[in-house]
Amino acid sequence: MNILRIDMGASGGPKVSVVPSGEYAGLGGRALTSSVISKEVPPLCHPLSEDNKLVIAPGLLSGTSAAQSGRISVGCKSPLTGGIKESNSGGQPSQVLARLGYAAIILEGKPKEGNLYKIFINKDGVKITPDSSLKLLGNYALVEKMKKEYGDKIACISIGPAGEMKMSAASVAFTDMEQRPTRHAGRGGPGAVMGSKGVKVIVLDDTGLSNRTPKDPEKLRTANKTFVDGLRKHPVTGEGLPAFGTNILANVINEAGAYPTNNFLVGRFPGISKISGETQAETEKARGGIPTHGCHRGCVIQCSGVYMDKDGHYLTKQPEYETVWAHGANCGIDDLDAIAMMDRLDDDYGIDTIEMGATIGVAMEAGLAKFGDAEAAIRLVKEVGKGTDLGRILGNGAAVTGKVFGIERVPVVKSQAMPAYDPRAVQGIGVTYATSTMGADHTAGYAVATNILKVGGYVDPLKPEGQIDLSRNLQIATAAIDSTGMCLFIAFAVLDQPDTFQALIDMLNAFYGLNLTADDVVALGKNVLKMERDFNACAGFTAKHDRLPEYFKKEPLPPHNVTFQVTDEDLDRVYNW
Amino acid sequence: MNILRIDMGASGGPKVSVVPSGEYAGLGGRALTSSVISKEVPPLCHPLSEDNKLVIAPGLLSGTSAAQSGRISVGCKSPLTGGIKESNSGGQPSQVLARLGYAAIILEGKPKEGNLYKIFINKDGVKITPDSSLKLLGNYALVEKMKKEYGDKIACISIGPAGEMKMSAASVAFTDMEQRPTRHAGRGGPGAVMGSKGVKVIVLDDTGLSNRTPKDPEKLRTANKTFVDGLRKHPVTGEGLPAFGTNILANVINEAGAYPTNNFLVGRFPGISKISGETQAETEKARGGIPTHGCHRGCVIQCSGVYMDKDGHYLTKQPEYETVWAHGANCGIDDLDAIAMMDRLDDDYGIDTIEMGATIGVAMEAGLAKFGDAEAAIRLVKEVGKGTDLGRILGNGAAVTGKVFGIERVPVVKSQAMPAYDPRAVQGIGVTYATSTMGADHTAGYAVATNILKVGGYVDPLKPEGQIDLSRNLQIATAAIDSTGMCLFIAFAVLDQPDTFQALIDMLNAFYGLNLTADDVVALGKNVLKMERDFNACAGFTAKHDRLPEYFKKEPLPPHNVTFQVTDEDLDRVYNW
Repeated sequence: MNILRIDMGASGGPKVSVVPSGEYAGLGGRALTSSVISKEVPPLCHPLSEDNKLVIAPGLLSGTSAAQSGRISVGCKSPLTGGIKESNSGGQPSQVLARLGYAAIILEGKPKEGNLYKIFINKDGVKITPDSSLKLLGNYALVEKMKKEYGDKIACISIGPAGEMKMSAASVAFTDMEQRPTRHAGRGGPGAVMGSKGVKVIVLDDTGLSNRTPKDPEKLRTANKTFVDGLRKHPVTGEGLPAFGTNILANVINEAGAYPTNNFLVGRFPGISKISGETQAETEKARGGIPTHGCHRGCVIQCSGVYMDKDGHYLTKQPEYETVWAHGANCGIDDLDAIAMMDRLDDDYGIDTIEMGATIGVAMEAGLAKFGDAEAAIRLVKEVGKGTDLGRILGNGAAVTGKVFGIERVPVVKSQAMPAYDPRAVQGIGVTYATSTMGADHTAGYAVATNILKVGGYVDPLKPEGQIDLSRNLQIATAAIDSTGMCLFIAFAVLDQPDTFQALIDMLNAFYGLNLTADDVVALGKNVLKMERDFNACAGFTAKHDRLPEYFKKEPLPPHNVTFQVTDEDLDRVYNW
Repeated sequence: MNILRIDMGASGGPKVSVVPSGEYAGLGGRALTSSVISKEVPPLCHPLSEDNKLVIAPGLLSGTSAAQSGRISVGCKSPLTGGIKESNSGGQPSQVLARLGYAAIILEGKPKEGNLYKIFINKDGVKITPDSSLKLLGNYALVEKMKKEYGDKIACISIGPAGEMKMSAASVAFTDMEQRPTRHAGRGGPGAVMGSKGVKVIVLDDTGLSNRTPKDPEKLRTANKTFVDGLRKHPVTGEGLPAFGTNILANVINEAGAYPTNNFLVGRFPGISKISGETQAETEKARGGIPTHGCHRGCVIQCSGVYMDKDGHYLTKQPEYETVWAHGANCGIDDLDAIAMMDRLDDDYGIDTIEMGATIGVAMEAGLAKFGDAEAAIRLVKEVGKGTDLGRILGNGAAVTGKVFGIERVPVVKSQAMPAYDPRAVQGIGVTYATSTMGADHTAGYAVATNILKVGGYVDPLKPEGQIDLSRNLQIATAAIDSTGMCLFIAFAVLDQPDTFQALIDMLNAFYGLNLTADDVVALGKNVLKMERDFNACAGFTAKHDRLPEYFKKEPLPPHNVTFQVTDEDLDRVYNW
């Protein structure tokens, strides 16, 4: 595999070099992006400066026949947190990029003349063209335009207006199987970095290329079968997620009293039945949408879906659990159609749905709109797309919005908004929010699995005991999985079923001709975390940044009336291994 | 001396306690405010939370017959930097508060019901009244209202709309001898903290009280005479400052190529002759204003003044050097009347002129207005007063504005805007900007004195050699002087003339019956810095925050075409003593 480096700041215009992976050989996904950022980006550089880099990397098994191997990692110094960032996404580009033979695309430098570029990559090479007609296009219109230009076999990586405006919550969009820009590396503002590089869209076409060849095809086939069987037999990946999508969690988390409502004021939402996964799936079916669908080819979990409007026309992909919560309960909104509309707008503008929903929650607390007012919330999201002064504030996330409007209750860690689990009622995820190298991030160490879903054992969610070890182990496992390019949802089956975990390792060994063991996977995870944490330390982060906002320790959360109980001393033990 | 503690969050309304100074006895000004913040405020609290405190403290010699003793310190955890903050101001309140017998006022807690209060203090006690008629009044109208209510012998400490809106650049205003709200503790947003406490104005009346009594009146009289003679014979405090005010520096710094122009793009401003101190003094005289005036009784330097509009009506106090630069050269504006208008608006809204000018420079770089467009700049300042979305952005300072509009060239350290000396052409002040506990702050260790004015020796401003020791010694001396409540401008004479320094020590000894030596003064300064730095470390600051933005190391500044050359390793030596 090669690395495709594009110096966007070269004099005379962007300069392409295709170089062997070299010191990065054998790395994929998050391990690769975090390695490049660690080694090549000065930790104190401005995230929008020429010194930052945007690294886009498929996983180790992307572009192969392995199931669930379609995740893609995006790395940079984050404009939102100021620390290292790996944000990943589903969609088609991971497989396509890997088949094109690239272990990563690295965007470097910064065009001096302010041009906006499109980059086309196929088996014959790389073509970079300035195209001012793309300016401020939404992701949907952009992708349509690219299909007209390059045909409908393409996969796109793009930014919307939010990225062009360098908003700290801007996402990088990836097209799905239907070539819609519905999958996003949303968290931490990688879209703003892509915008600062002057790149609007990367169009990939793997016509004429086939899957990457494994060292041991037979072994890969067998391991993949065991792996798929494992996913199919586990209740979460085999039943819950396929039937209702990620939003099956809404009822579960609400029942647990951990569903943040009205900007993290209470833990249960009275309107839950109107926005639950069950209601969502029913609504989709009734309108001719699809509740069971994959975001990329090779997916057997099928947690995605298609959401139609009241007239049966496509509106957006099935909004995820986090999105339904962020634009829903967190803003007191119980209207699925309004939530789906905001999901569509977010995808089109290219902005993180979690950050956006959390930001509107903060804006509501500041009095810009009333909790529960869906129309007002949609209006606020539209400000972002228009790039008004208010839109610029909101598009820079919850921390900036809280600061601008003088609000104290802002649910962020390292300036990144908390997702859909209140850390007071799921204390394990609170540990992950506080200590992750990424800022508040549920995917970085999904303690909800063990605290609430009783996957991989059980640790009481309301008590501090056991949360440090739980979060630590999950953060290590996640860093490893994020490096394989596998969908993180495999973790449910991998954590519960030793043979599924072994099958994952067998697939890696079969493809690369290696003899990795479980210990190697753990070592990889630790190594990734260590690199990331070292980068953050050099960027100025300390143990003092591994903390939840003080009010989580002081305000009890109904209905359990619990505060966050894990001590600072314990939080400082997470990285002691 | 007692300390007046007011718990604004007490149930049933604000609760007053007058307590002996106790562990804070013998401390004044910055030493007192920083001690209280260090000991009583949790470093990780939200600056707008009930856990933050606002400490207002006169100096050790305030309320005595000692010349220049009218500075007042305001301390808090800063909403702008997130670190400890001491911001100080001239005006009348320092003397009045000291005569009332208070070593400090400490505002604590946070009113739950959202009332806005006025606090009246005289010899008979303290009266606190909610008064919703004060809401969003400008400082000028507010003070007029207070004079109608309490008579014209009062001194006021107040916030304008910016403080009420909790903007991070909001100042605390102090009335001058003419009872105008023209002197401000501007830097770091103490006005937002006062706003979060629900306090609009503190009205002081010392009717019936006289100066504090020294232990040795005769010794104080003699020392004060030597001290005043020293100030009068030094060319800076005896000639330059009285004749032209602080803005005498404009020509000097411009000549040195260190006058930041167009958002720190170049070091010389073509329009300098229109906004220099000489032109300003002439203009004032021609219109019936005053170029030589004190900001408080007992001042012999008289660097202040009164600025009339074209029709000869009072517009504002003589805008200071920093203000003329911030709203002038830094925005490419060469119109003194426009600058004076912005100074007036800033004072009325209660916002830091340095932060505001730097912020407009950043906004201009973002394309919100053209450099040089005075009308547009005034319009931007007015947005702050109105509290529009744009005004909220700007009122939160340069760092937030840069983030919201996606700008890389933002001249801040620890999120506080740099003042009127480019650190590339005055490398000593660059060391102070980088390492001060306060964020970028010229007053924290005014190396310009030695780099440019050749006071206290000479260190070449364009080279890194000697800057660390220079800045360190000045930071220590400043922390001590800020604790005496003396105007910092005494430093020119104190640094150059040993007998003037001795006279300062003699005054302290005479008043308190002590035997302090120069070593004690140095020890006090070190102790203050250490407390502040420890607080900042507990708030998450590290050596990585003691840095200028990267572009100062990469972009050469015309006309000398120098970059900032002091190494990171050297910066890390500043606090090694």
